[in-house]
Amino acid sequence: MNSPLLHTLTIALGARSYPISIGSDLLASPATFAGLPAASTALIVSNTTVAPLYAAALYSALQPHYCDVHTLSLPDGEAYKTWETLNQIFDCLLSHGCDRKTVLFALGGGVVGDMTGFAAASYMRGVPFVQIPTTLLAQVDSSVGGKTGINHPLGKNMIGAFYQPERVVCDLSLLATLPARELAAGLAEVIKYGPIADMAFLDWIEAHTSALLAGDVQALAHAVRRSCEIKAEVVGQDEREGGLRAILNFGHTFGHAIEAGMGYGQWLHGEAVACGMVMAAHLSQALGLVDATFVARLTRIIAAFGLPVRGPMLDANDNAGRYLELMRVDKKAQDGAIRFVVVDGSGQALLRGASDAQVRTVIDLCCVP
Amino acid sequence: MNSPLLHTLTIALGARSYPISIGSDLLASPATFAGLPAASTALIVSNTTVAPLYAAALYSALQPHYCDVHTLSLPDGEAYKTWETLNQIFDCLLSHGCDRKTVLFALGGGVVGDMTGFAAASYMRGVPFVQIPTTLLAQVDSSVGGKTGINHPLGKNMIGAFYQPERVVCDLSLLATLPARELAAGLAEVIKYGPIADMAFLDWIEAHTSALLAGDVQALAHAVRRSCEIKAEVVGQDEREGGLRAILNFGHTFGHAIEAGMGYGQWLHGEAVACGMVMAAHLSQALGLVDATFVARLTRIIAAFGLPVRGPMLDANDNAGRYLELMRVDKKAQDGAIRFVVVDGSGQALLRGASDAQVRTVIDLCCVP
Repeated sequence: MNSPLLHTLTIALGARSYPISIGSDLLASPATFAGLPAASTALIVSNTTVAPLYAAALYSALQPHYCDVHTLSLPDGEAYKTWETLNQIFDCLLSHGCDRKTVLFALGGGVVGDMTGFAAASYMRGVPFVQIPTTLLAQVDSSVGGKTGINHPLGKNMIGAFYQPERVVCDLSLLATLPARELAAGLAEVIKYGPIADMAFLDWIEAHTSALLAGDVQALAHAVRRSCEIKAEVVGQDEREGGLRAILNFGHTFGHAIEAGMGYGQWLHGEAVACGMVMAAHLSQALGLVDATFVARLTRIIAAFGLPVRGPMLDANDNAGRYLELMRVDKKAQDGAIRFVVVDGSGQALLRGASDAQVRTVIDLCCVP
Repeated sequence: MNSPLLHTLTIALGARSYPISIGSDLLASPATFAGLPAASTALIVSNTTVAPLYAAALYSALQPHYCDVHTLSLPDGEAYKTWETLNQIFDCLLSHGCDRKTVLFALGGGVVGDMTGFAAASYMRGVPFVQIPTTLLAQVDSSVGGKTGINHPLGKNMIGAFYQPERVVCDLSLLATLPARELAAGLAEVIKYGPIADMAFLDWIEAHTSALLAGDVQALAHAVRRSCEIKAEVVGQDEREGGLRAILNFGHTFGHAIEAGMGYGQWLHGEAVACGMVMAAHLSQALGLVDATFVARLTRIIAAFGLPVRGPMLDANDNAGRYLELMRVDKKAQDGAIRFVVVDGSGQALLRGASDAQVRTVIDLCCVP
């Protein structure tokens, strides 16, 4: 294909539907941003890592569309996903006299996307925004679903809104500057969509491991498209997280325990999810849903991407107890009962409870002693 | 009538429709709060003025419905409609382990309602909330329309969400403790609904001036019901403030200039709106929409409620210029052009521009020299 735009996918949410453009060299092209709601002002929100690489190109691409384009560079990292940083966006909007039509452009990973989205949801009770995710994780995960928000000292993502962007631009060229470890962590979320929804996609992933790790644009385009398609289908049926949407958390219950237990930032989110999927596969086996062959295969695929398949020891005295403790405080737990996302081996996910003994056995089996 | 519940009104907004209960002695009755979404925890958010009067009664009425009922008392006043105060609500919710089903109860005036509504919109991306407005202004104005939010140092109501409550409970008995000046200020917003939508309602208001000022429950019930009906009709056609909803701002453009020019808190909002309506009536006459008889009658009705009909001097050298300056920075102005809400005398409002000379003449005519 010669066209830099490889796919356009529509997220169907009635009046809040929006397109995801997937391709290469999209960022610097003014055509990428044609047809957005008319406005005189745009604000690019980025961070100190991404802005030096890509903000100037985006600025040039937006200039034909707006009288004024402003750029705001936030500090980089989950630690800054706070009210104080969010308020920098409001300060910037108000000090530039931005009105109800101003369009926000989120240029960065999940943290920038979540904060910019929440700023857009809240500024004058809602202005349009566009997501330009610059990490693979953000392209396949946070760009679909409309979850925006910030952390509170007492909990992650506790304050936010469901708010849909006008458009998502997944420019695969931006992934060229992504560190290999982050690319692999993003691929963990891609792998996830196989066992929960499409085993043929898992076959394809297995067959394209090298191309994906090498950053091949055609392979990445397919991976991003299929991941977004699956997520869009699930979100379309459950926009506000009533039930079905929980299956997207395959690997996340164990994964959150690893992230929290190790201290956020030690393991990348995707790494924790990768290891969490191995644990969830073992739990699926313990519940009689899949056989050992399935577990071994999923483990092999995850390992082939250089992702961790053995869990860390979180407590030398009672490791499994610590995992259980951390999983019980997860915000998806209800009255202390953990609902696990498990799979049946045919490309379907289910929500199931499990006995502490079953979970302990799985954790003991999966953790490095 | 013997029943304390005098009317139930439905605000029709599709899936976000909700009822407004209007009556006396509703607050202390558990039946008032039957049928809300099931939850184990409720949080009453009030302020230091209202909580000592009514929080205990609400607590008792909620106890049969929830395992845990918590109460949070915020500092009273527009000056506290800030992120810091809002964050007290989040701190309280998180420190009590409140989950996605927790129901928030806003017990207070517009500030408590706006902040509690925004907290409900944002906590875990949305939990249910119930409005129990304790001022007449909040009962006839902020309880319908779904506007929630906080102020920013650079502008009022700049950060917020459109978010609808599960239910609004207008307990007219609560108005017994409302200072007379605040009751009258609330009646200014009631009067407003006449000229913009229903001249027969203006006739009724004129005929019931004494009953309304005396706090007669039957009269107040009708005033609240008809005001909410009219506002609901307008909001139902324009939930997110695209156009029609602007007519609810009759008197507000001049009124905001008075509030801002005098310093917020000097004039009550309703007082500024009352005087603003007189100015807007004169402007309607200047634009040829109404005659002097209409202006004189509206002025007489407003004055009969003890509300101001003459504007304050905001600048000894160029009073009209100062009004114009303040009106141009209003967030409803577009590109510096002020859009005035004017009326035609038949119960219809229109949006019109006016020349500076026309506006200056009106201000000079209406201001105390």
